[in-house]
Parts: sequence; C-alpha cells; structure tokens
Amino acid sequence: MSNGGGVVSSTTHLLDFLEEPIPGVGTYDDFHTIDWVREKCKDRERHRKINAKKKESAWEFTKSLYDAWSGWLVVTLTGLASGALAGLIDISADWLNDIKEGVCLNAMWFNHEQCCWGSNETTFAERDKCPQWKSWAGLILGQEEGPGSYIMNYFMYIYWALSFALLAVLLVKVFAPYACGSGIPEIKTILSGFIIRGYLGKWTLLIKTVTLVLAVASGLSLGKEGPLVHVACCCGNIFSYLFPKYSKNEAKKREVLSAASAAGVSVAFGAPIGGVLFSLEEVSYYFPLKTLWRSFFAALVAAFVLRSINPFGNSRLVLFYVEYHTPWYLFELIPFILLGVFGGLWGSTRFGKYPVLEVIFVAAITAVVAFPNPYTRQNTSELIKELFTDCGPLESSQLCQYRSQMNGSKAFVDASPNKPAGSGVYTAMWQLCLALVFKIIMTIFTFGLKVPAGLFIPSMAIGAIAGRIVGIAVEQLAYYHHDWLVFREWCEVGTDCITPGLYAMVGAAACLGGVTRMTVSLVVIVFELTGGLEYIVPLMAAVMTSKWVGDAFGREGIYESHIRLNGYPFLDAKSEFTHTTLAREVMRPQRSDPPLAVLTQDDLTVEELQVIINETSYNGFPVIVSKESQRLVGFALRRDITIAIENARRKQEGILLTSRVYFTQHAPTLPADSPRPLKLRSILDMSPFTVTDHTPMEIVVDIFRKLGLRQCLVTHNGRLLGIITKKDILRHMAQLTNQDPDNIMFN
Amino acid sequence: MSNGGGVVSSTTHLLDFLEEPIPGVGTYDDFHTIDWVREKCKDRERHRKINAKKKESAWEFTKSLYDAWSGWLVVTLTGLASGALAGLIDISADWLNDIKEGVCLNAMWFNHEQCCWGSNETTFAERDKCPQWKSWAGLILGQEEGPGSYIMNYFMYIYWALSFALLAVLLVKVFAPYACGSGIPEIKTILSGFIIRGYLGKWTLLIKTVTLVLAVASGLSLGKEGPLVHVACCCGNIFSYLFPKYSKNEAKKREVLSAASAAGVSVAFGAPIGGVLFSLEEVSYYFPLKTLWRSFFAALVAAFVLRSINPFGNSRLVLFYVEYHTPWYLFELIPFILLGVFGGLWGSTRFGKYPVLEVIFVAAITAVVAFPNPYTRQNTSELIKELFTDCGPLESSQLCQYRSQMNGSKAFVDASPNKPAGSGVYTAMWQLCLALVFKIIMTIFTFGLKVPAGLFIPSMAIGAIAGRIVGIAVEQLAYYHHDWLVFREWCEVGTDCITPGLYAMVGAAACLGGVTRMTVSLVVIVFELTGGLEYIVPLMAAVMTSKWVGDAFGREGIYESHIRLNGYPFLDAKSEFTHTTLAREVMRPQRSDPPLAVLTQDDLTVEELQVIINETSYNGFPVIVSKESQRLVGFALRRDITIAIENARRKQEGILLTSRVYFTQHAPTLPADSPRPLKLRSILDMSPFTVTDHTPMEIVVDIFRKLGLRQCLVTHNGRLLGIITKKDILRHMAQLTNQDPDNIMFN
Repeated sequence: MSNGGGVVSSTTHLLDFLEEPIPGVGTYDDFHTIDWVREKCKDRERHRKINAKKKESAWEFTKSLYDAWSGWLVVTLTGLASGALAGLIDISADWLNDIKEGVCLNAMWFNHEQCCWGSNETTFAERDKCPQWKSWAGLILGQEEGPGSYIMNYFMYIYWALSFALLAVLLVKVFAPYACGSGIPEIKTILSGFIIRGYLGKWTLLIKTVTLVLAVASGLSLGKEGPLVHVACCCGNIFSYLFPKYSKNEAKKREVLSAASAAGVSVAFGAPIGGVLFSLEEVSYYFPLKTLWRSFFAALVAAFVLRSINPFGNSRLVLFYVEYHTPWYLFELIPFILLGVFGGLWGSTRFGKYPVLEVIFVAAITAVVAFPNPYTRQNTSELIKELFTDCGPLESSQLCQYRSQMNGSKAFVDASPNKPAGSGVYTAMWQLCLALVFKIIMTIFTFGLKVPAGLFIPSMAIGAIAGRIVGIAVEQLAYYHHDWLVFREWCEVGTDCITPGLYAMVGAAACLGGVTRMTVSLVVIVFELTGGLEYIVPLMAAVMTSKWVGDAFGREGIYESHIRLNGYPFLDAKSEFTHTTLAREVMRPQRSDPPLAVLTQDDLTVEELQVIINETSYNGFPVIVSKESQRLVGFALRRDITIAIENARRKQEGILLTSRVYFTQHAPTLPADSPRPLKLRSILDMSPFTVTDHTPMEIVVDIFRKLGLRQCLVTHNGRLLGIITKKDILRHMAQLTNQDPDNIMFN
Repeated sequence: MSNGGGVVSSTTHLLDFLEEPIPGVGTYDDFHTIDWVREKCKDRERHRKINAKKKESAWEFTKSLYDAWSGWLVVTLTGLASGALAGLIDISADWLNDIKEGVCLNAMWFNHEQCCWGSNETTFAERDKCPQWKSWAGLILGQEEGPGSYIMNYFMYIYWALSFALLAVLLVKVFAPYACGSGIPEIKTILSGFIIRGYLGKWTLLIKTVTLVLAVASGLSLGKEGPLVHVACCCGNIFSYLFPKYSKNEAKKREVLSAASAAGVSVAFGAPIGGVLFSLEEVSYYFPLKTLWRSFFAALVAAFVLRSINPFGNSRLVLFYVEYHTPWYLFELIPFILLGVFGGLWGSTRFGKYPVLEVIFVAAITAVVAFPNPYTRQNTSELIKELFTDCGPLESSQLCQYRSQMNGSKAFVDASPNKPAGSGVYTAMWQLCLALVFKIIMTIFTFGLKVPAGLFIPSMAIGAIAGRIVGIAVEQLAYYHHDWLVFREWCEVGTDCITPGLYAMVGAAACLGGVTRMTVSLVVIVFELTGGLEYIVPLMAAVMTSKWVGDAFGREGIYESHIRLNGYPFLDAKSEFTHTTLAREVMRPQRSDPPLAVLTQDDLTVEELQVIINETSYNGFPVIVSKESQRLVGFALRRDITIAIENARRKQEGILLTSRVYFTQHAPTLPADSPRPLKLRSILDMSPFTVTDHTPMEIVVDIFRKLGLRQCLVTHNGRLLGIITKKDILRHMAQLTNQDPDNIMFN
C-alpha cells in the first residue's frame, strides 16, 4: 500500500504544503514497473484539488468540467481515430493486394472491384472481369489468356509480394523496431503496469500502419486484426497526452489503453461487445467498471466510424455475415468437439522466431506456393467468408457445385437439401486440404518475422478450412448413409440437415480459441462476426474443448508464452500460485545474503546516504526508527532520494555532504556547529505495504496482483525483517516450476 | 491478509500437526461476514492435501479426480436444475394464467394454446377459438358471447387473480419469508461475503418456485426473471452441498453462486452471454476468470435444457425474436436518446414497500383495470413480443392496421412501406397510453409486496409501450411531413424507413437500464433476446443516456438502494471513495473510546481471557508481545477462542480457570505448582493485515474491497494502535455522505 509520500504528506501535514513538490519525484524509468496504488492516490488528490477550486471562478468551473469529461473525450477521440485508421488500412491493403494481380487503367487508385463497378458485365460470375482492369500480363504482354500470361502474372505476383514484404521489414527494422508482431503481449505487459517508452508512440503508430498494409498486401500468412489493437492503443496513448489527467498518471493512462484495445478489436472484427470482453478477459489488468463503460463507448464509436467508411462495401458492422437455415442436431456435437480438439492442438503449436532476412524466403515461398491454389491466393478474409457461407441456389462458388437431384428446385429459395458432391466439390476438397497444410506451415514460420503480424485471421482460416472439410465429409456421409442410426432420425433424403458452413465457423472459433485461450470473449466475437446467435452451443462446445486440449499440452496461450520468452515482469492473474512457501522464504535478505540496506530516520548524513545508494542497486530503501529497534517508519525510492538530494543541493543553501538527513516531522537536535540538515519527509512513503514473515506466499502473490504492488516489506512481531519485490516473486515462481529464474529481466 | 491460524500453522509447524483441528474453528455465525483470504487459503490447503495423497492409491487418485472435476459437475447440475425449473415455471405459469379465462374440456392440464392444437380452425385469427376450450362464462352460463358472459368472465378473472395472489402471499409469509422480492439485492450481499442462513435453502427454493408461478399467473405487474436468478442460486447452493470442496468453503461456494446467477439470467431471457455479463457486472464480487468460464458453461447448460423443454414453443433460445428489414438513420438517435431519458427517469422512481394485506388491494385493482384493456390483460412477455414485432403483411395485430396504399403489395414479402395509420392503430395508441399509465402505477405498488417479484419484465413492458408510441408517432410524422429537412434525405413516400418495433426495443432497454444501471450486460441481453445485432448503436445510445439520467437523479440503482435500506454490510465496488481521511481517523479506539481490547501472547490466564471476552462484544482481538512494547503478533477471533477454550476444558485434563494461556510456539516458564497451560497458537492468525496510521482511507477501502477483508489492524512505527473493521468503514462512509451511520446493522 505504498503511496506517494508527496501526495499523502501534502494532504496531512500542513507544513509540507509550503514545500514545493520536487520535479521528477513520482515518475518512472524506462523498463520499470509502476506503483498502482500511488498512481491512483495521485489521481484522487488531483481530482480533489480541482473539486476544491471549482467554486472559485467560472474558469475553474469550466476546467473542472473539462476534467470530468476528459475521460469520455479521450475514449471518443481514440474510437474515432481507431475506426478511421482501420478503414484506411482496410482500403489501402485491399488496393495494394490487387496491385499484385493487375492495375486499373482508368484510375490507378481503384482496386479491382471499384475498377469494375462501372462495367457493363452484370452477371455474377463475370463480375470481376472488365476491360478497365488489366492483369500484368495483359498490360505487359498484351494478352490476358494463355500459359505465357499465366507465367507473367505468376512472376509479377511474386515480385510484388517480395517487394512489399521487404519494404515492410526494412521500414520496421530502420524506423520502429517496436512495430513488429501483433503487439498484444507487450500491451498486456504495459497494461499490467510496465513502462516501455516508445512502444505506443507516434513513430510506432506511423510505421506500424504503413507496414501493416504492406505485410497484408504481400500475401504473407498473417492477419491485420491483432496489430489493429496495437494501432488503437497507440492512438489512445497519443490522445491521452492532450489531457493532463491521463498524461501525468500512468494508472489512468492504462484505463485509456484498456478502452483503446477494446476499440481495436471492435474495428478489427466489427465486434464492439467482443472487443470489450477481449479487453476484459485477455489484455487488461486493472479493469474497474468505469473502464467497462468507457471501453464499451470507445468500441462503439470505433465500430460506428468504420461502418461509415464502409470498407467492406456491405454497410454492415458484421465482417462475415452468414445466415443458416437449418438448426444443428445433438449428434453434430461430436464433429464439433473434434474440431475443438484440432483447435487445441493448433494452439499448442510453438511458433518460430526468425531474423529479418528470412522474411524474403518466407515471402517468396508463400507467393510461389499460394498463387496456383485459388484458396491460398485469395485474401484470407474473403476465404473465410466463402468457407462460412452456406450453399444457396445463388451461390456460384466451386464449393457449392453439387450434383443437382431435383428439377425446379429454384421454387424454394431457402431449401437446399443435402446433395451428392459434384466434381467442383471434389476439386475444392483437394485444394482445401493443400491450402490447410500450406497455411499451417506458413503461419508457423510467418509469426516469428519482424513485420506487423496477427494470428487471428490465419488461425481462423486454418480452422475454417478444417471445419469446412469435416462439414462436407459429414454431409456426404449423411447423404450416402442416411439409414445409419445416427442419421436416421433427423437426416432423411432430400432434407437439408447439415450445414458445412457452420462447421467452418466452429472450426475457426476452435483454432482461435486454441491460440489465445479466450473463451467468453471469443464466442462473443464469433457470433458478432457471423450474426450466428443460434449456434452458441456448438461454438461454446468447440471453444471449451480447444481450451482444455490446449491447456493439457501447455498451460499458456500464445501471449503468455511470448511474455515469458521476452522476460517481461508480468504477474499473470490467470495462473494460481499453489505452493506452500512463506514470505520469509522468498524475502531478501536470505541467510547467505548481505544484510538488508536500510536507512535510519534521523542519524544519516548526506554522504552516508549517497554511499548506501551508490553501493547498492535496489530501487528503494526501508526507513526505520533505529538500528536497534528495527521498527519500520516508511519506504523511500532510490530515484526520489537521488532527485531530492540533487534538488536540495541546487536550491537549498547550506546543504553539505556532512548535513544530517532526517525523515521525521521535526529536525533532530544537533550540535550548534553542524551544517543545515536536509528534510526528506516529503519523499517518504509513510504507508508502505507490510506482511508478516509467516504470511503464506499465496496471499502475498494475491496482494501483489490485486493491488498492483511493486514491493512489500516483511516484518516479524513489528520489527522489519526483509523485502519482497515483484521480481523476487517472479523469480521464486520460476524456481518452483523449474524454469530459469534469470529469465525475468526487468524490474 | 488474515488467514486461518489452523491452516498456516499446520503447514509450517510440524509440532502442530499432532494437534487435531478443533471442530467449529473457522466457521461463521449467521449475519456475519466471511474472511475471503482465510477461505481461499483453506481451499488451497485442502487442494494440496488431496494432491499429496493422490499417488498413494487408486482410490485416492479417483477422489482427486472427482475433486478436480467437482467444479464443472456442480455448475452442470446447477445449469440443468435451473433450466428445468425455469421450464417448469414457464409452463405452469402459462397454464395457470389461462385458467383465469377458461378451462380445457378435454384435458384440464392443457393451456389455451395446447388445448386448441388439435382443433380444425386453421386460420391465424381464429387460432385461439376452438370448441374444446371453454371460457368460464361458456362453462357456467353456457354462452360464450354477450354482455352477461363478459361480466361473468370479468368476475372469474378477478376471482382467480385474487386467489392466486392471496395464496402466494400467504405461502411466503408462513413458510419462507425469504422468498419474497426478486432476491437479487440479497444475492449481491451474499456474494460479497455475507452469511444469511436459509436464504438459498431448499424451503426458500420450493416456496419461491410455487409462489412465483402463482404471482405471475395472478396478473400482478411483476416479472419472473429476477426471481429466476434467486431460484438458480438456490439450486447452486443446494448442489454445492454434494461437494465438500464447495460445501465447506464459503468463498468457493460463492463461485458456484456467481455461476448460478449467470444461469438464472440465461434461462430468464434465453441469453447465456448476457447472463455471464450480468453476473460479472451486476451481482458478483469476487469473479476470477475461472468463474467466468464456469458461469459461461452453467449459463449454456441452462439455456440448452430450457431449449429442450421448449416452453415458448418456437425452439429458439431467443425469447422475443425479431427481424427488422430497415436500417436505422442518424436522425433517429434523437428519439432514441429521448427514450433513454424516459428510461432514466423511470429508473429514479422510488418503489414502495407495503405490508402483506395490501396485496389483495393491489391484485384486485390490477385485475379490475387490466381486464378490459387487451394490452394489460395479456401476458406481459407476449405484450413485449407484440410491441417489438415489425408490421409485416402477415401480421394480424391491431397495431398493424394501417390504411393500405397499394394494391398487390403481397408481391414483395419484405416490403412494408410506411403507411398512414388506420383506425386499429389509433385505438391501439389510446389503449397503449392507458396501459402505460396503468403499468407505471401498478409496478410501483407491486414491487413492495411480499411476493416473488421481478422488475425486469414490467420495466421492459413500460419501456416497450413508450417506445412503440414514440415509434408510431415518428412514423406518422415522417409519413405526413416527408418534405421536412430531417426526413427528406432518407424517408420518401412508399419507403419503409421507420420501424416502430425498434423503438419499442430501444425503450425497453432504456427502462431496464434505468432501473438496474447495467450497461454492457444489458445491451448484450437485449440483443441476445431479440437477435437485433444491427441495432447495437441505438441500444447503446439509449442505455447510456438512461444511465446518465438515472445517475443524475440519484447514484444508486434499485439493488443498491434496497441493500442500503436493509442495512446489509455491502462495500460497493462501483462507488469510489473520494475523501482524504486517514486510517487513524477511522480506526477504533478514538480518543473518547475505551482502550483497545488486546491479548498478550503469554501472560493471561483462562479466567482473564474469559473476562475480556465477556466484557466486550468484538469479533476478534489483536495479540501483542507485551503491553509495554505493543508489538503485534497476530489476531484471534472471539468465536475461535470460545470454541477452543470449551474444547480444551472438555478434552484436555488439568485446564483450570487459573491456567496460563499462551499463543507462542513454546510454553512460558511457569512456577512449578501452576496448572497446565493452554496453548492457543493453532487459532492464532499469524499474518493479520496491517496498515499504518498514515494510510489514506481511500487505500484502506481499496484493500478491503479487493481482498475481501473483515478487519485490518493499524500500526504506527511498528506498534499496534487500533483496528478498522468493514463496519467501521461503512459507518465512516455513511457519515461522510450525511447518512445515518447506525443504518449499518450487521457485522
């Protein structure tokens, strides 16, 4: 329960009001952990000051109103910016993706679809062929058909893919190394109270936006959904600088970031509620109900802006809108659960981490292999959409080329009874199987590359492909063996009993669940995505199964393992501490250690204090009454002491190396000739958090997690014994699980 | 961070292993608050014991598996029972409701609809008229039509309504007083760690189920949705007795109750995800992610069972399924926000609290006034469904009797352009206005009655009526003034631009939001209810507005105000503590108080200890090293001391009133002739929670909330100064907000 000494003392000791706050006290170094309790106290103090002043003048009243509304303002701005950026990224990536195949003669800046809008071709199948749109072969060789132009197009496709990938990786490497990956593990760490300067800055935002477009357009097996969360968080961070309430308080800033991550998921999938739940379940650490409402609002605004920009051209919030016409049957839970198992296995795959140059190879292989197969060449989102869609009579996809059994079936628009698969379906099945293998391999290699890369869409694609394959298999099984006991009841000839699209949806959810280990938020995202409210039970069954299977093969999701690999000091709220160790076994000093570095409250000189500071590397020091009694008075941070001494020497006259330092309310009685003493009470945290040496570590861990502590002092019968820091706890936990305790790198 | 002394010492002091645990130590009295930290430690300890034993034999291994899965088992059972009970209640209430109007001649146990299933009448309008179903007039007077039979039916309707209401109130009064109301405020209090024995017992469950059916059937303006949460929690509580993991641990039991309340909302509305969010946002106190998954599962199972029972006969999970065919327009946000304001005003209404006998008057007035108006006579759920439904060509409702403008409009099934209102609509408008006034008045009076009564459905009905009225008004305005600037762009003649059903939905959400002050969970519930995924933005706008308006008129929702009126010790996590008081200003003893009652660790006799216990009424006592040093050793609970002394006197020989009591590890050196000393270390909590006297109360409140403490000791420089209990904090908060601090009644 440490809190800013400056804060508390200024409210309780009138004398200290006269002292100016020392600039720099209460800020943090890079790669350090914030003190949640102190930050929250600082904010309440600021709030009280504004409230006290607001009756003084109209101007102060306006300022207090501005302050009260700044929370809503900053989330609104964040939502607006996230929505706009997401729209921009969607449109640019779409255009750049089409550049790989050809160019619009009328207007370079049109993508394939926009280019052909004015075309006379009205039939659905010919929709994407129009004279204005030239493939590269058409442009360079002057002919659209034939093996020569196929090779030309193939070559240009690889060329562009490689150029985009290389440009992306170079931009990231040179300008903003923090822009690579999805950013979600780092955002989780930052939200838990860690400081990584520049991770959410304007350069990262700019480079991440540009390279994300390039990486997506290059055709690499990656998604833009995860990185959009990072982009939204950058927006949140940048806008929070407009409001002192947020810019000057690390804890409050994290509330904005929680809301921003909700907005990010909201625009990534068009799923505002799923976004809020994602922020709650997956990324946030401290999530008060007020943040729930703000997140909800930010997610809403972002989704609304994206809907207005309308990059998908269907004026729906929903990305993969589907309508199925058949209910699901209890028996189908078996294949759904199998898909869940597949998802769990996919989630326990270990993804690689590869250096920069390999991006060329991965991009080249991706382009070479992807081009010939229509299911790998097309945009992954479109692939998922196609796989989710049920085969109606209007559907012209290869996946829907069944052998028709009845004449005049067009009479019933909704009825599409199960039919034997036609040659198109068989071809599609082979291509899908190849696409599945390709996607799995390429995704594993792609995720380690130093480009902005999300796992959401590739995972969903893998699940959707697997699901569609299983769905078609079950459908054909039911058609040819409708007399089997399992099918007899509900799946007669000529009825529409199995929807392969639903299997694709379930598979996609299962794979996404396996990778991220989300549950509730994932189901909400998927049903917001698809509008498939009726299919909650299959979704839940598959997601639960995939989580259990994934947990059985390794308890951590992709984000947690990434955090561990990077050595961030992240105390996961999800994993329980189940050991019986006590605080005294974890605290420092242990028997073999040198004694605890402590400060006495009134008999150190400035020189002695500096010696203690220089000879140790601790971030803070307990202050005690005297060496004999060992009774605890408070806690002082190293950074604050250094700043305070420097400040005093610069500003206060008569402060020498022999000056006495005191943390008490009144100066100690000194000999007449001694130099002027230095009062450091204002930097003393007079309510440090303490536990007794008998406290079980499970309770200590709980306190650290719930209150967001950095350190905690250990006492025995009122005497100071030692100290436990967050890093000590993480090191102890690593030891208990037989991991290398030196993995934890930062403080 | 107090934890069971028995727990800690048994793991750390081998000597204490020999001592048997004292029966009764670690349990709670009725109307007391549990110690979350101690309960969680107890559970981890139990878990470790089982884990340590599991390798011993196959039987122990089976037991450990059973223990590991018991969490999933208990939520599954709870989900199954909640779903089944909800189905039973739905069906019974439906049947009993129809009994008010008539009886099925073929089979008494059929309701009106089931009775007429076999009928030859196939047209939609005549669907509910069949010879098998006799109204009371038809049965008694032998004629179905005419003023005489109308009066007869009217009389019988009032007769039955009164009988049901009277029976319900008597059953509640005589057998289970805890069965009245919705139960949600008490469940919130129980989940926050309070003990109310019998509130979730089998008698309450039985009587609540029966009287809920009676109360709903009596036609009183109340809903069964809130009480279903109580019913589900009773199921959860009863099933938790099958599993020692949950029956013997109050904290773990509350995890089951959180899941049960999710299941309750899930079956109440057919909204599993909304249920989970409701449990998270509204009722739960301690909600780890594991509980999120379990709640999700319980909600899913319950919804699944209810779907299988299929009481609504539409095989959908969704209660009020609607499909709208028109998007909404930006301008419409103005009426939506107005509906939000209405909802907020409705939410700041104060509901009455009336004694038992008034139920007769309320039921009589309800029946007398409700019968003539079709919108008040019909089942409230059906009313809401009708109000939500868009007017398609197949809709025969009075609300859809517009003057037709075109011939052959049946050609386009979906197109139902705005039309001028016909006489049916005008009649309906008048009846709706009357119904609105009636519902508002009756709901205010009904909610205080001592019967099971929920506010969800009545609030939704009020909102839906208001919304539909506004919707029809806007629609007619747009029809007659389509040249106005606001309509010109998007609402031409012959287009279907305004959907009155959507207004009803928005109004319902706004009123529900005003009453409960839910936000995210409410929007999720409403869109799960209606399947109206596209209309998230209007819903959010209205819900936010209603929350702001409601908060402006009084910060608390209906549950919080109910908790406050009842004086339950509930530390609300939603309201922030913004004052600057310090721990030393809140702790006892203050200057005017008698000194703190403390125990010294090794120089009290049994008699002295008993005197201290008898002369004070505190629930626990700090144990210190000596009166001189005031250094804190631990904390011992009154209940545990009493039990331990009694136990020792019964079982240990030589324990006299003059026996020395000691809390230390080793017995103090005593004169040779002194009686055998009594060791009480096993009941000593050696890791009591402490804060310093300088700690700001905002931090103390935060710690109490987040860790679920009962008390906390206050120290200054390592010496014990005083104690702060949860009740002290609540009393302090009441003082600061100028409320009567003696309102807080329990410990």
